[in-house]
Amino acid sequence: MNWHPAYTGRVLAPDHAFAADRLYEAFLDALTAHARTVARLPAAQGHESELTALDAGLRRQRTLPAPRPEPGVPDLYFALQKRLETEIGPESLAWLRLGLSRNDLDMTAYVLAAREGLLRVARRAGALREALLDLADAHVETVIIATTHHQPAQPTTLAHYLVAAAAVVGRDHDRLLGALARLDRCPLGAAALAGSSHPLDRAFTAAALGFREPVANTYDAVAAGDWQLDLAALGQTLGVGLSRLVHDLVAAASDGWLRLADDLVQGSSIMPQKRNPVTLEHARTRFGRAAGAAQMLAFSNHNVPFGDVNDVGPDVQEAVHTVLDALDAGLELLVACLRGATIDADRLAARAAATDTTATELADELVRTGGCTFPEAHRIATALVRLQADRSRTLASATPDDLVGCGGPRLTAEALADALSPAAFVARRSGIGGPAPAAVRSQIERGRRELAEYHRAVDTSTARIDAAHRKLRAPGKDTTT
Amino acid sequence: MNWHPAYTGRVLAPDHAFAADRLYEAFLDALTAHARTVARLPAAQGHESELTALDAGLRRQRTLPAPRPEPGVPDLYFALQKRLETEIGPESLAWLRLGLSRNDLDMTAYVLAAREGLLRVARRAGALREALLDLADAHVETVIIATTHHQPAQPTTLAHYLVAAAAVVGRDHDRLLGALARLDRCPLGAAALAGSSHPLDRAFTAAALGFREPVANTYDAVAAGDWQLDLAALGQTLGVGLSRLVHDLVAAASDGWLRLADDLVQGSSIMPQKRNPVTLEHARTRFGRAAGAAQMLAFSNHNVPFGDVNDVGPDVQEAVHTVLDALDAGLELLVACLRGATIDADRLAARAAATDTTATELADELVRTGGCTFPEAHRIATALVRLQADRSRTLASATPDDLVGCGGPRLTAEALADALSPAAFVARRSGIGGPAPAAVRSQIERGRRELAEYHRAVDTSTARIDAAHRKLRAPGKDTTT
Amino acid sequence: MNWHPAYTGRVLAPDHAFAADRLYEAFLDALTAHARTVARLPAAQGHESELTALDAGLRRQRTLPAPRPEPGVPDLYFALQKRLETEIGPESLAWLRLGLSRNDLDMTAYVLAAREGLLRVARRAGALREALLDLADAHVETVIIATTHHQPAQPTTLAHYLVAAAAVVGRDHDRLLGALARLDRCPLGAAALAGSSHPLDRAFTAAALGFREPVANTYDAVAAGDWQLDLAALGQTLGVGLSRLVHDLVAAASDGWLRLADDLVQGSSIMPQKRNPVTLEHARTRFGRAAGAAQMLAFSNHNVPFGDVNDVGPDVQEAVHTVLDALDAGLELLVACLRGATIDADRLAARAAATDTTATELADELVRTGGCTFPEAHRIATALVRLQADRSRTLASATPDDLVGCGGPRLTAEALADALSPAAFVARRSGIGGPAPAAVRSQIERGRRELAEYHRAVDTSTARIDAAHRKLRAPGKDTTT
Amino acid sequence: MNWHPAYTGRVLAPDHAFAADRLYEAFLDALTAHARTVARLPAAQGHESELTALDAGLRRQRTLPAPRPEPGVPDLYFALQKRLETEIGPESLAWLRLGLSRNDLDMTAYVLAAREGLLRVARRAGALREALLDLADAHVETVIIATTHHQPAQPTTLAHYLVAAAAVVGRDHDRLLGALARLDRCPLGAAALAGSSHPLDRAFTAAALGFREPVANTYDAVAAGDWQLDLAALGQTLGVGLSRLVHDLVAAASDGWLRLADDLVQGSSIMPQKRNPVTLEHARTRFGRAAGAAQMLAFSNHNVPFGDVNDVGPDVQEAVHTVLDALDAGLELLVACLRGATIDADRLAARAAATDTTATELADELVRTGGCTFPEAHRIATALVRLQADRSRTLASATPDDLVGCGGPRLTAEALADALSPAAFVARRSGIGGPAPAAVRSQIERGRRELAEYHRAVDTSTARIDAAHRKLRAPGKDTTT
Repeated sequence: MNWHPAYTGRVLAPDHAFAADRLYEAFLDALTAHARTVARLPAAQGHESELTALDAGLRRQRTLPAPRPEPGVPDLYFALQKRLETEIGPESLAWLRLGLSRNDLDMTAYVLAAREGLLRVARRAGALREALLDLADAHVETVIIATTHHQPAQPTTLAHYLVAAAAVVGRDHDRLLGALARLDRCPLGAAALAGSSHPLDRAFTAAALGFREPVANTYDAVAAGDWQLDLAALGQTLGVGLSRLVHDLVAAASDGWLRLADDLVQGSSIMPQKRNPVTLEHARTRFGRAAGAAQMLAFSNHNVPFGDVNDVGPDVQEAVHTVLDALDAGLELLVACLRGATIDADRLAARAAATDTTATELADELVRTGGCTFPEAHRIATALVRLQADRSRTLASATPDDLVGCGGPRLTAEALADALSPAAFVARRSGIGGPAPAAVRSQIERGRRELAEYHRAVDTSTARIDAAHRKLRAPGKDTTT
Repeated sequence: MNWHPAYTGRVLAPDHAFAADRLYEAFLDALTAHARTVARLPAAQGHESELTALDAGLRRQRTLPAPRPEPGVPDLYFALQKRLETEIGPESLAWLRLGLSRNDLDMTAYVLAAREGLLRVARRAGALREALLDLADAHVETVIIATTHHQPAQPTTLAHYLVAAAAVVGRDHDRLLGALARLDRCPLGAAALAGSSHPLDRAFTAAALGFREPVANTYDAVAAGDWQLDLAALGQTLGVGLSRLVHDLVAAASDGWLRLADDLVQGSSIMPQKRNPVTLEHARTRFGRAAGAAQMLAFSNHNVPFGDVNDVGPDVQEAVHTVLDALDAGLELLVACLRGATIDADRLAARAAATDTTATELADELVRTGGCTFPEAHRIATALVRLQADRSRTLASATPDDLVGCGGPRLTAEALADALSPAAFVARRSGIGGPAPAAVRSQIERGRRELAEYHRAVDTSTARIDAAHRKLRAPGKDTTT
Repeated sequence: MNWHPAYTGRVLAPDHAFAADRLYEAFLDALTAHARTVARLPAAQGHESELTALDAGLRRQRTLPAPRPEPGVPDLYFALQKRLETEIGPESLAWLRLGLSRNDLDMTAYVLAAREGLLRVARRAGALREALLDLADAHVETVIIATTHHQPAQPTTLAHYLVAAAAVVGRDHDRLLGALARLDRCPLGAAALAGSSHPLDRAFTAAALGFREPVANTYDAVAAGDWQLDLAALGQTLGVGLSRLVHDLVAAASDGWLRLADDLVQGSSIMPQKRNPVTLEHARTRFGRAAGAAQMLAFSNHNVPFGDVNDVGPDVQEAVHTVLDALDAGLELLVACLRGATIDADRLAARAAATDTTATELADELVRTGGCTFPEAHRIATALVRLQADRSRTLASATPDDLVGCGGPRLTAEALADALSPAAFVARRSGIGGPAPAAVRSQIERGRRELAEYHRAVDTSTARIDAAHRKLRAPGKDTTT
Repeated sequence: MNWHPAYTGRVLAPDHAFAADRLYEAFLDALTAHARTVARLPAAQGHESELTALDAGLRRQRTLPAPRPEPGVPDLYFALQKRLETEIGPESLAWLRLGLSRNDLDMTAYVLAAREGLLRVARRAGALREALLDLADAHVETVIIATTHHQPAQPTTLAHYLVAAAAVVGRDHDRLLGALARLDRCPLGAAALAGSSHPLDRAFTAAALGFREPVANTYDAVAAGDWQLDLAALGQTLGVGLSRLVHDLVAAASDGWLRLADDLVQGSSIMPQKRNPVTLEHARTRFGRAAGAAQMLAFSNHNVPFGDVNDVGPDVQEAVHTVLDALDAGLELLVACLRGATIDADRLAARAAATDTTATELADELVRTGGCTFPEAHRIATALVRLQADRSRTLASATPDDLVGCGGPRLTAEALADALSPAAFVARRSGIGGPAPAAVRSQIERGRRELAEYHRAVDTSTARIDAAHRKLRAPGKDTTT
């Protein structure tokens, strides 16, 4: 067949190149699993030598590079089949085609490759929460002034902030596991869409490929693309969600209180102090890419027939991996930044002391211990803030006399200092979820417990898949579950 | 304060209108829960009368319309507070402000309203799977010719297709429950972001509002917007995913074998046969809207500081409900279409009989029982297809002689008819996930079991929330958990 | 007809409400123009009284509120027609329906309303460039240190930056005019899609509605939705493009050197220095909303038949106006911020003097006048930067001796000070596009010329439309062009 | 410098690979233009030999493959510079760095590569309109039944439809030219952002690279990314807009009246009639990819500082070309499908004759010539439609007696046949934009005129660029404009 140059140049050639680059092993895994499933059919009894040759032939392909495109051969699978036929003969090869369709074979290869990519992202996302909790651990007492509306708002600790960020990542872990569970089902055996009339043992096939189970409906197996929409959702949710953390880290680096490791910044040969936090910027763009690339998956799945396998098949797989790779890269860059970061706690402390962000706490204190009503307390605190600002003094340096002068009760110097101290502000917020050191430590512990559980879930899947791979890729035909 | 007309006209006025329309009850719920939490503070002992007045005042607000905007009052909450102050006096009101910030109050109201919308969508999505399974139940033996690449591909049954579609919806159920679990946590008590120095019992507050638990970190509680990204993901995943089902139903309606109920079509007064399946089209556009509107949530959360509460707060809530309403509407329209649909099984059967989509099965049969190798069988089947096409006869009408004439073995007339019959094609596919009636029936049963479990999960959440509402909205202050 | 409650509640009711709120006048304009076109048909001769009654009846509708929904009446147009029939009788009304279809009538109303919204956005975008150029004019000599990678990079002027931002807006003006030109064509007379067999004068109709011309193909007129994609592109291009300007202004406000007017900030009653630049944040979210809402238009138009009028018709109009309103709001807020902003030039100057961003210029100067090769010059400048940093002195305070000590040639004190002065750095960049005051002034002038041309284009369209409206909405039937 | 493996693996390595693959020539062009601009500086007088060596060295690079990554060399440009230095020595190389920054060099290379891609898309879009108009030319009399709401609606001609589709493409041409004009300006000479203190002749540089003009503000030159948003808008507008045309062509292919060329379909070896119109499906997915990939550009530009050059620089260029390549591929595939398509006019005619879509025209005719009022005419036509349907006859076969029997006037057989004939229906619609053959022919002519103008515009740009390339890439330093 001589296809039109547009079809060859725009479809067949790039598809072949992509499959050779990213799907070759997945195809061999799927074909091997199918061949071993076929070998267990009643019809295969008495044909052991052909089936053994087939298995060996497939195994040998693993030692060869993916076949190159050639004229008249539409794609990688046909090229592979052709090479295989040369090696093992048509009789052995014929068994491979029994009960197999491009639809289920392709979808299986796509799902295998996506599962691998997704697990990689899942592990990186685990590393991110770990890095955040580790950094939090070291900064349970590092007071920062949190901003809202880009203005100093309230004292809290760096750890409190990092635990919040880690909690978002913890929910991303839920999302990743949900997507993984939905993806981790085997399409193979669905044939074109209606399954085969041969009694293929789909549970065996699924186990051979390390899947949780076969897809429960064969039409669903080849036609559904919602696993791609799950990946799109992850690309967008993680990408956009983490962009906010990156934004804050960039601001901290620009501010100077967060310093990236030397091997993660770009300097200026002439201005040695210049430390462009480019790695954070690149993380930001990777997350933006993940969020944007997600729309390729959305459009490809939109308003197309359920049975149309191109839109959710070959034509969208590159986009699937664009999303996964962008997340993977963004997470790797971000973890590297956090792991090598140093925090200038002195600068943070000096800055905290200079703000008047404890004014509300003073008012609360006047209610609590000074016998004021809330409105009175508010008025007095406001007056004190103004007085100090007018004298260009920090609020923290106000004296009991100043307070009395503003109409307030007389507090002891200690009580007043305490009411105005950012660290005391923090210490006093010891309820569920608050920034007081003990409260944050318990949040960190909870985070670590959740993370351990997450790691267990990811590891369990990985171990199941690894075990399957060892059998599948090993010499010797295996036809037992 | 006289704000700038741009600020009033573009921000304050529309925000007030939206809050009055969609958030008033949520605000009252949150404020009541907070007031009752305050009433349990040690500091509140001895102030029962003020706190009782506050509770009663809040309850009375439920009987009034939301306050109208007025000059100098920035938003609904301040207007509500002002009205309340007039009614109960500043002393009682002061207790409401204790330990409360706009940040946690607003976020709680937003989450409450979103939770309600999400539960509504969740119930509709349950109704959709039910409608699909019910229709499948009735069409386990209705043979259709599935298409791939917009061409007849293989026989299967309508039920097999519908179960596949229902399986996608089943995965949507997982997604909905995941999003609900992540959303169903109470921000209240987080104050501006660091919690309060008063020992507010956040677990009590959470229970009072029917939440699963308090958000475990107060910074997370007010700053995180990833619950919106979950809704965005649902808008996109369900919207795009279901667009494919709608596409097929529209095609079926256009083809004529699916007929919508009369109260769901638009006709032409002059061409009475014209039955525009507009309700399906409107479902399509609602799903497209959900998918598109999701991007408003994505952009609002993108590259903004974690602490910036406007982007994930007031400014994005209308978009949150655009997504939820679009899903709700699309699902309601789609369920209505399925519930009232009639299927023209005769037309489907006639069409199935006219195709040559069983040719591959004939080849398989020749391998299985005719002693042919796969390549031979394929050649013979191809020849028979051509022969019949050249004679303008259907493949199903081929005779044993025709088969022999094409180089095939002699099958009995019954065996040949069976090999070429779409119904037999289907019946023979009885493996896991296949279209054979018994196989599909077991898939339907599995679907119903999953659905029952899903309904239970949704009902449990709903019951918890309803119980909380009864206490919260009832007369009489309740300060016990 | 009793429609299904889902259809009534999810489609008919909201569509009626939207049309009554946003499209009523457009419908009356379109109907009036059609009625006057019909009145010029040969077939209408001798029926002047009916046609006069029709015209008067339509005019009277303008004095009434839009009709309310009623059972059995599907939408605003039918309700309007019914009310009109009651008033003028069926004979007069029948003329209105001649050659008219819902397809062309609806599309015309949609285009009219969108054109009005687009012109509003166009005028605001004009005001934005003007505000930027005016502010630039006042800051041609205000030196700032431009940042790249969130680090101080090079001296330039505030005006240079603002002119760059204004240039982006200038390209947005091109985009707006392009979209306007493509939109500004009249669909009316296209009937269902094939035009009418009556010789309706579509050029007359188009002129009556103030359009540039009729759409040149009637199928195109009712079926194309690419004008919506133009609006989507604007929502995204302006929304995302302007987000970068807003980002910088927020950073400047947070930094303190840009101060918004008092009526555009939210303060804290207790911390009077707190000036949350919320209006900028709200501008940011409006632009994000515009960019996100654009996707509703994209999805609605995606993979749907060209002839399907719901997807690009009623079902997407609310989204059209969400995009336009968000742009309009964002622009209005942004212009208000710029118009009321004050710049703290002293702070900027102090900050500029403290950086070492002129180091590269020193190197260039050493090449130019000091007889150094480029690599030598670079080495010397680097050494001087380090020396000053080690001594905690600013680079600008280096002396000729310091330079010699670093291996450099002896410059005069003036020459060295000049080489190290941010202002001189700027002054020296006087080439095309550079920041030197004269260069920027000429850029401002060019910007003002382009802006004047843009205003002329917008005003011309507006004037044409206004003139048409005056005729169209005036008493007395007008049947002349 | 030993960078972090994450930074090397995720940023430097892929950036190098991409630049080597897609930007190498653009870099050489930009560097050559810069070197020749430098050679014209007063400071360069007397250094002719160094500058000649530089020019020759750059020219020689064109004969070599792009340099490979090596440890310690961050990217392609540095690797190129290093290789160049080895060849021509540091003195010659130093001239290249004079007044040059990575910011303006990179942006110039990006714009050059994007301009080339955009012109390629522009030419393909020209070919698309041409193919549509050519096919229209051949089918001015081919009657089709246009559908609305997926139901037969009205007769028109294939040409009328195709001209409508071509009109959308014509508006895409406007969009392409607008984007091209905005893009076609030279950033070089902007240096880091403030231009150089050397009097570089930016107009010369711009002309040397075939640009229309230099960017008028140097900050704008390096910082603005709105040209990417223009490409995003094109990706979305063309991608989504053309998806509707593809949708209709797929439906036509599925219906069987449009037949793609043999070299554009995939068949089934066993079912020879199966002609999967996969090329159209692949066009559909390319357009979906273009629309989705556009969001990568949108997110990368969103909420980032104007001065941040990574987000709109290296990190987004791959996405720029994903959008352009997807459009290019989709257009090429679509044009191939149209060019090789055959239309089964007989099938269309038979189908047209079988519908009752001329019923409205009969009513109009009864008004026009039968002396009926519009409501009467409508009633009679409805009755006739029903009568024929009840008798299972086509509407077209109704007789004058039938009409009288339905209460209508007696028409002659000819007049009735004419009123009911789809072809006559079409012929009668001869107004502006209608489907009557003469009207469509004049639309085709207008389309061809617009297309010729468009081609002229594209060719003029291409010629200017080609001429510049010839000078730029030719041996011998050219320093004249």
